[in-house]
Amino acid sequence: MDPDAVAKAFVEHYYSTFDANRPGLVSLYQEGSMLTFEGQEIQGSQNIVAKLTSLPFQQCKHNITTVDCQPSGPAGGMLVFVSGNLQLAGEQHALKFSQMFHLISNQGNYYVFNDIFRLNYA
Amino acid sequence: MDPDAVAKAFVEHYYSTFDANRPGLVSLYQEGSMLTFEGQEIQGSQNIVAKLTSLPFQQCKHNITTVDCQPSGPAGGMLVFVSGNLQLAGEQHALKFSQMFHLISNQGNYYVFNDIFRLNYA
Repeated sequence: MDPDAVAKAFVEHYYSTFDANRPGLVSLYQEGSMLTFEGQEIQGSQNIVAKLTSLPFQQCKHNITTVDCQPSGPAGGMLVFVSGNLQLAGEQHALKFSQMFHLISNQGNYYVFNDIFRLNYA
Repeated sequence: MDPDAVAKAFVEHYYSTFDANRPGLVSLYQEGSMLTFEGQEIQGSQNIVAKLTSLPFQQCKHNITTVDCQPSGPAGGMLVFVSGNLQLAGEQHALKFSQMFHLISNQGNYYVFNDIFRLNYA
């Protein structure tokens, strides 16, 4: 399958799940998965989703500006680099962010092994 | 060695080389290395450095804001995620950027296998 198509499908699925049903993200991570969120390091799907669901906002909408992807090596992994903005309910200005994912292929399905998120302060 | 220390040392070396001696970056890439620069895909150390040295500015200074790193898998690779700003000579405002590197260990030395760069437009 075309890597760009896989990356775009993943990005669409990830952020639509984040915006509509954040606990549903748990199925995209595994026990060895890592998230670094604004410098805070978290490991394991349950801990990662606990962090994401405890963020101090309920409704949000991610708007994606760019998606870049590259194969991460011979094992079929893929790096996905995203930039965009995050609109929080009731806030006038959207927050710009950058995020990278390392997707690992597991019998044809991908899961997130690495996830690094940063807000880009203006 | 401490991964955070490796990541910080790499970042310092990479950007100080970029700012002082851009052709010297060639030793940090190999033939299989990939760069996606503002959406343009380039492969191989010579092609990557040809791109970087042909950028339409001579003097520049990278100032780093954040460095995050994670191991990319059991093979000893490392993901390094950088945000910062790029000051071009003669320009009043710095450009914000985000960049990620996938470093692969080769007999104790790291080289850049993946490199994705994006400006963060305000």
